Amino acid sequence: MQSLLIISHGSRRETSNNEILQLTQTLRKELSQSYPIIASAFLEFSEQSIPEAIGQCIEKGATRIKVLPYFLAAGVHVTKDIPDEISTARLQYRSVEVEILPHIGSSNSICGLIGNMLDTGNTHGI
Amino acid sequence: MQSLLIISHGSRRETSNNEILQLTQTLRKELSQSYPIIASAFLEFSEQSIPEAIGQCIEKGATRIKVLPYFLAAGVHVTKDIPDEISTARLQYRSVEVEILPHIGSSNSICGLIGNMLDTGNTHGI
Repeated sequence: MQSLLIISHGSRRETSNNEILQLTQTLRKELSQSYPIIASAFLEFSEQSIPEAIGQCIEKGATRIKVLPYFLAAGVHVTKDIPDEISTARLQYRSVEVEILPHIGSSNSICGLIGNMLDTGNTHGI
Repeated sequence: MQSLLIISHGSRRETSNNEILQLTQTLRKELSQSYPIIASAFLEFSEQSIPEAIGQCIEKGATRIKVLPYFLAAGVHVTKDIPDEISTARLQYRSVEVEILPHIGSSNSICGLIGNMLDTGNTHGI
């Protein structure tokens, strides 16, 4: 069973982290056919580590996990911290395939999203 | 003349900052009719401050500046640091209207972008 794990930076501000949890909920509805299990984890300011989040996906039946770095640019978190955490998780859960996807900022649709946002002001208002 | 200023976090990693500069270049091409002046600034790891970037937009002829926080969630950078910097800039450049837009992560199109990215793998590969 395919699983998607959204990894974001995390904030001291609870409202900020709630935005990611809300996004995760929306993705669960919209992508449920391709990804029956969708989870999120924070790199910082969270009690749950990334290997623990992966463990929870596996408990729910995940056999393949795609990790989406929810970052706009490939700084140290994307190029080192997340791969390091995933390497640890791979050692712990050897039977499961864990793939790191490109970070969200590398999407070629970002410019279009910005243009649309400027035109329509279509935001969730948090 | 309307101007757009993209403010991102900034990174120790030059390649990461180059991603933002590249995005700014693309936006200059795609949004040139609505925004003849498009600039970017980094909150951290940059020699140029946000008020300085605003000053440069004004030198180029900007009379109205829209500031886009290029952040996925409204943490302290979005809710405090950027507004503080903009307040400083407003005191310095009183004749110009400076408006802070919602952060990019608040776009209702983010879920669609993620779905599209998962389906097509359409990324710039940095």
